[in-house]
Amino acid sequence: MFFHDKRTQYTVRVDKPDPQFARLLQQAIGGIEGEIRVCLQYLFPAWGNRGPAKYRDMLLETGTEEISHIEMLCTAVALNLEGASGGVIDHIVTANPVVKEIMGGMDPRHYLSTGLAAMASDANGVPFNGSWVVASGNLAADMYANVMAESTGRVLATRLWHSTEDPGMKDMLSFLIARDTMHQNQWLAVSEELGGIKGVHPIPNTFPQAEEPGEFNYSFVSTNLDRPANPGARWTQGTSVDGKGEFKFVHGAPMGEEPKLSPPIPEGYAQAEQMRSKDDSSSSTGSLL
Amino acid sequence: MFFHDKRTQYTVRVDKPDPQFARLLQQAIGGIEGEIRVCLQYLFPAWGNRGPAKYRDMLLETGTEEISHIEMLCTAVALNLEGASGGVIDHIVTANPVVKEIMGGMDPRHYLSTGLAAMASDANGVPFNGSWVVASGNLAADMYANVMAESTGRVLATRLWHSTEDPGMKDMLSFLIARDTMHQNQWLAVSEELGGIKGVHPIPNTFPQAEEPGEFNYSFVSTNLDRPANPGARWTQGTSVDGKGEFKFVHGAPMGEEPKLSPPIPEGYAQAEQMRSKDDSSSSTGSLL
Amino acid sequence: MFFHDKRTQYTVRVDKPDPQFARLLQQAIGGIEGEIRVCLQYLFPAWGNRGPAKYRDMLLETGTEEISHIEMLCTAVALNLEGASGGVIDHIVTANPVVKEIMGGMDPRHYLSTGLAAMASDANGVPFNGSWVVASGNLAADMYANVMAESTGRVLATRLWHSTEDPGMKDMLSFLIARDTMHQNQWLAVSEELGGIKGVHPIPNTFPQAEEPGEFNYSFVSTNLDRPANPGARWTQGTSVDGKGEFKFVHGAPMGEEPKLSPPIPEGYAQAEQMRSKDDSSSSTGSLL
Amino acid sequence: MFFHDKRTQYTVRVDKPDPQFARLLQQAIGGIEGEIRVCLQYLFPAWGNRGPAKYRDMLLETGTEEISHIEMLCTAVALNLEGASGGVIDHIVTANPVVKEIMGGMDPRHYLSTGLAAMASDANGVPFNGSWVVASGNLAADMYANVMAESTGRVLATRLWHSTEDPGMKDMLSFLIARDTMHQNQWLAVSEELGGIKGVHPIPNTFPQAEEPGEFNYSFVSTNLDRPANPGARWTQGTSVDGKGEFKFVHGAPMGEEPKLSPPIPEGYAQAEQMRSKDDSSSSTGSLL
Amino acid sequence: MFFHDKRTQYTVRVDKPDPQFARLLQQAIGGIEGEIRVCLQYLFPAWGNRGPAKYRDMLLETGTEEISHIEMLCTAVALNLEGASGGVIDHIVTANPVVKEIMGGMDPRHYLSTGLAAMASDANGVPFNGSWVVASGNLAADMYANVMAESTGRVLATRLWHSTEDPGMKDMLSFLIARDTMHQNQWLAVSEELGGIKGVHPIPNTFPQAEEPGEFNYSFVSTNLDRPANPGARWTQGTSVDGKGEFKFVHGAPMGEEPKLSPPIPEGYAQAEQMRSKDDSSSSTGSLL
Amino acid sequence: MFFHDKRTQYTVRVDKPDPQFARLLQQAIGGIEGEIRVCLQYLFPAWGNRGPAKYRDMLLETGTEEISHIEMLCTAVALNLEGASGGVIDHIVTANPVVKEIMGGMDPRHYLSTGLAAMASDANGVPFNGSWVVASGNLAADMYANVMAESTGRVLATRLWHSTEDPGMKDMLSFLIARDTMHQNQWLAVSEELGGIKGVHPIPNTFPQAEEPGEFNYSFVSTNLDRPANPGARWTQGTSVDGKGEFKFVHGAPMGEEPKLSPPIPEGYAQAEQMRSKDDSSSSTGSLL
Repeated sequence: MFFHDKRTQYTVRVDKPDPQFARLLQQAIGGIEGEIRVCLQYLFPAWGNRGPAKYRDMLLETGTEEISHIEMLCTAVALNLEGASGGVIDHIVTANPVVKEIMGGMDPRHYLSTGLAAMASDANGVPFNGSWVVASGNLAADMYANVMAESTGRVLATRLWHSTEDPGMKDMLSFLIARDTMHQNQWLAVSEELGGIKGVHPIPNTFPQAEEPGEFNYSFVSTNLDRPANPGARWTQGTSVDGKGEFKFVHGAPMGEEPKLSPPIPEGYAQAEQMRSKDDSSSSTGSLL
Repeated sequence: MFFHDKRTQYTVRVDKPDPQFARLLQQAIGGIEGEIRVCLQYLFPAWGNRGPAKYRDMLLETGTEEISHIEMLCTAVALNLEGASGGVIDHIVTANPVVKEIMGGMDPRHYLSTGLAAMASDANGVPFNGSWVVASGNLAADMYANVMAESTGRVLATRLWHSTEDPGMKDMLSFLIARDTMHQNQWLAVSEELGGIKGVHPIPNTFPQAEEPGEFNYSFVSTNLDRPANPGARWTQGTSVDGKGEFKFVHGAPMGEEPKLSPPIPEGYAQAEQMRSKDDSSSSTGSLL
Repeated sequence: MFFHDKRTQYTVRVDKPDPQFARLLQQAIGGIEGEIRVCLQYLFPAWGNRGPAKYRDMLLETGTEEISHIEMLCTAVALNLEGASGGVIDHIVTANPVVKEIMGGMDPRHYLSTGLAAMASDANGVPFNGSWVVASGNLAADMYANVMAESTGRVLATRLWHSTEDPGMKDMLSFLIARDTMHQNQWLAVSEELGGIKGVHPIPNTFPQAEEPGEFNYSFVSTNLDRPANPGARWTQGTSVDGKGEFKFVHGAPMGEEPKLSPPIPEGYAQAEQMRSKDDSSSSTGSLL
Repeated sequence: MFFHDKRTQYTVRVDKPDPQFARLLQQAIGGIEGEIRVCLQYLFPAWGNRGPAKYRDMLLETGTEEISHIEMLCTAVALNLEGASGGVIDHIVTANPVVKEIMGGMDPRHYLSTGLAAMASDANGVPFNGSWVVASGNLAADMYANVMAESTGRVLATRLWHSTEDPGMKDMLSFLIARDTMHQNQWLAVSEELGGIKGVHPIPNTFPQAEEPGEFNYSFVSTNLDRPANPGARWTQGTSVDGKGEFKFVHGAPMGEEPKLSPPIPEGYAQAEQMRSKDDSSSSTGSLL
Repeated sequence: MFFHDKRTQYTVRVDKPDPQFARLLQQAIGGIEGEIRVCLQYLFPAWGNRGPAKYRDMLLETGTEEISHIEMLCTAVALNLEGASGGVIDHIVTANPVVKEIMGGMDPRHYLSTGLAAMASDANGVPFNGSWVVASGNLAADMYANVMAESTGRVLATRLWHSTEDPGMKDMLSFLIARDTMHQNQWLAVSEELGGIKGVHPIPNTFPQAEEPGEFNYSFVSTNLDRPANPGARWTQGTSVDGKGEFKFVHGAPMGEEPKLSPPIPEGYAQAEQMRSKDDSSSSTGSLL
Repeated sequence: MFFHDKRTQYTVRVDKPDPQFARLLQQAIGGIEGEIRVCLQYLFPAWGNRGPAKYRDMLLETGTEEISHIEMLCTAVALNLEGASGGVIDHIVTANPVVKEIMGGMDPRHYLSTGLAAMASDANGVPFNGSWVVASGNLAADMYANVMAESTGRVLATRLWHSTEDPGMKDMLSFLIARDTMHQNQWLAVSEELGGIKGVHPIPNTFPQAEEPGEFNYSFVSTNLDRPANPGARWTQGTSVDGKGEFKFVHGAPMGEEPKLSPPIPEGYAQAEQMRSKDDSSSSTGSLL
């Protein structure tokens, strides 16, 4: 069960409101790198967690923290949009072309749809999409999903930090960047406990590798038409990173045949010209005529 | 530039067509864990790659391989749907309730929309979405995105492998599982070259960590209302996994204030009752009345 | 800032796991009538609330409660899917057609994508969409959005209640139905405080009604080609519900002209045949030739 | 069956074309507050209406009127974009940076994709989404959905009205604002006929309230960690708005237990480390270690 | 302006309600081949039509007819779902596994979300998407879009016709199939008037073909690695179909160079290892090491 | 199986980087008229092709070419964004309002999410959507889909060509325009081989036309309330374009009855007021009271 304290986790201060920066901040709220995603991406696998409970607990605690980050960012958007009050919106009635250009720069829905508040969308107004919430049921895979989310999230936060000179916003973003540092480390710590790279890979580690055809699972398949020689890269020779195989370098080549499908079934209502014998329906080399 | 050989990368054989398994295979084509996603997720960052060219080349080669995997899976869907020819579809006209239940089990659009062929959708018919293509411009973040994609992809492939007894399909899926093993290792090899966990984290490693407030970037913030003591977990004490800090355990507490927003601007057309003085518009503890 | 207690708000008990019911429950999680929607629909306008703080506080408290409801429902999905453990999934390997039909009935992604856990999607696997989060900045409009969400939500909950005979699930759903009753009342109480129907309408009540052309704002426009007489309905005569006008009944009739657009601009690369004089480009009655 | 008159319902006149205003108008066409949504939201429940036919008829008539509003707005967009003819587009070839900024302000797809015409999208180019069409089969719930749609729609229209100084556009928007006033009143009139607030609530009014646990359905659950005293608000004491209960104020507290899920099934291919005994898989307080 | 007659364009009769067929019909309502799409795809370009008015008029008339088709199909869905009344839904309370399988076969949201009515979604519950509404501003391109829509629409309708034995439904679908026949002919008639294939192609016919590099615009580029000889197909030799060139057959070969991008900008926060000199950042053949 | 050559199909050269033009180019990558769509729209029907193999081969070859076009456009976006390096992004830190306006003009995610690289999205940042990939299983319908895609694609390319003065970009776009010319001709050649307009229509040509009610399949139904006389247009008299009927002109009129639906089922939890007898639930003319 969840509870709330009316104060924010960290100070949210905007010294000079900037409606265009409000738009940029939306990426960190409703974008694929944003906080709604990480919040749900920690809570959903926690609620479906099967296995050691300590990882569920950790996911729940940090998932809860992320709601607080959404709260901070939405507050920051609302405060930045107050710059529209004495600025952009007032001037719209003047049909001043310069002001209109600024309107182009802010998200028009921040005025039209919300009356100066945050939305569950990204910096282009594209809504948050639940498909981004990855929770595979495999703890190691989910930890990578989390490290990835915190990595792209921290990259985004540093770019936002770079995009403003407002001291309040820089301060808030520094805090969020610091939290991303910790969260990257947290999920890595779980991976370490699960055995580190050699222990967790290949993910899932419960599938019997004997079922994998051995000539393919540690071979770099080059699809380069130059047919280069083995470049001796880390991934083309030596022991595999997971310690379970030897890297090889092979030139890609088709091992299958040209597919042969049956002719259309009558009730599929293809064109009459498609209704041919099965033999006709596949091509051989040179059949293009 | 891309070229094509009419044969498939690996044999695609369906011994006993199964329209419902065709539906399941769609998850590996157009689902978030599927091959269209990895294909574009390797090609897009290759085309935008800034930095050592060898990584771009590697991304291009494997991205190209993934198109061949889409081809194999789409062929497998078409072949499995041939089971509908002598089975499901013929019987629809009989209004046999048992057969209709099977129709419920296959994707009806496999008949209605494609006439027995694959779609760019997942196992529920939800279309592929370009937002899943992550390419941050930060090589280490992208490698995690790739390991994550190959990990959830391999988990999916093993579940599909488990869901069929068709020897041809099991053979094809074993091949794809093996390739996922290799691809996990490939991206890990890049991470290793980039310095391994200690070298790449926190991602991005170009942001000056001095800008991060030091009390937050290696602290586990517990939001658990039980206020537990430091459990001595890997992520609450000792050196951080990235080697750059010391893990701490802190009880979460609000450091910010309750947000205060300005009253609505007149041109936002809020209700008249919302138009109050700025002081009124924020609550203090106990203001709920 | 948010905090968490590891216990759920109310008991979540599944006496007889049912993977198909798990699919139905998804509608209450990630569907448009579901709990993620109401959760964000209360939190976002709270974070952007401009006006009396007591309404923000109320939104925050109930928005926080809704996260607990998502938690309960996701737990219920995970528990219902345990029925797949000894039932559906085990049997898939047998290729038993009857079992496969059941697989058709559950959401295949509950196995393929999550390994038996909830997703941020609806009962058809369509992902939650952030566009559903309505927060207009007008308190009265938002209260209607909330009453509507709790009304469709309670309708959904009663249908789910009817769809199961599991005592544990019926108990949990009864609780959620009761909470929806309260929440409908809460938002109505705000509307009452804001002046009730006569006080809040037309929403927004800050737009000067003198700007509205008076012949249209309380007239029922009949587009029925039968040209019926005034039926004397509540909405065609008497004082308007908002008390600010008199209902009238009028037969719809075009008051505008047939639109005339300019010919295409050359750089729009329309077909040559579209490039005509402005006079030609509009039709008059009978110009169909 | 539907018919058409080539004239518009009301005059559509643009005195000074403005491509950026065309973008803003898109929100009223394809946005969630827009006319496609209300049009379908009245027609779909009309076509599925079960119950008194007079409400179906009313929905049909007004749904038909809304198509005429889409027509007016699309015409207005096309006329406003004619401003791009002699202005923006011509100048693109000059690579004039000032002009390019304007291009940023209009929707580039208004040129690239339509050659100066409206799209079925919102002001950010996000396409109309059929999920917005709410038709629950419960008349009272649907009426709230309609009042909500007309309320957010009227708020949007007033903001658009404020965003232009074009007399023609202001005139057209005044008409639409007036119609929204009427439509709010219409749906309210149905609610009044259905019994008003006390008659229709809780929605649905056909679920036996005896099934609701009585201690929860009129209680305000405070999730505020300050544990405030009953503030004596309208929603925390006195008779409930629906007249069927007494408001109470309670401090939220977990009534359920910490969830316990079974360990992963083998065929889910979780990591080996997750495969533990059932007892292990749940945490107790303090189990974080 | 639009008007309505309460009778349907054609008889909608369901002799034996079938909730699963209701699901299939949804594809013809809210699917990409469905009637909402064609309705808007004729109305939007009509409202933005620039050029001869007779084509706008024709689009308006047929777009109006399509609303009547949506009406018929939605009515058919509602009537087919009445089969759920005495069948599926009643039985849900019995937890009869056979009945549940049928539930899997119908769209669960037809009960959960609408109480037995149509939705603005396809046969998998995926919502209608406004992006499908193509209106390019080029009349010839739009006519192809329309022929394509009526062709895939007629294919869908024939498959639906094949999927039912209900005489009423077959009758209604025959009518819709007939209308699709006419509509294909209509749009073709416009193409014929615009000059037929030779007159309208290449679309747009207003772009000066002299700007096209002549060696590429009538050459079939073979990307087949077998490097086949010119197969003498219709599209590899002889006069082009548009009569404006000679078909040629060429083996695809790269004409560009390997792309060279600049190193990352510092404020992009790529990894430090990506920050190299410009020369390093591009590969030459063999640089894979 | 697919292979790659590191050189591009045609030269990609940007003489003067322009971040705003990069945004426009996105429409040709991830927009509905863009190259990802045509690529998948040729490859998917190839992989599901049933009928003469030569058409599959042709689809495969051109589908493969389209991947090379995505590659060229993504490279062009990355190169154009280098203009942001020394321009826009550097200046953000200055909070220069003029620069910020430019930022409004480029896609902010080109910096925030990719660090100056292309995305799988359109010019408004709306992600590519797999639903756009049309492959009906009917060859003639699919050819129209392809001609339509190449027609709207060529219109888009000409507008992009017009939007830049960069010689390198104009050169690349000229190449793409030329390829679109060829591809239009290719798909038309297939249609010609399939019998031309008279041979392929109505699509599908395998449905027995005797099943179509003859009075509707070649009649133009006028829904114009003016009830105009037969205008003698190409589509209202004479032989139909497909040569299989005679065009007629009829005034639309309802042939069906007003729909009558059953009252709600109890378990649908409609409002009590909707539960009426079946007779009541339908209206007759004048029943509006």
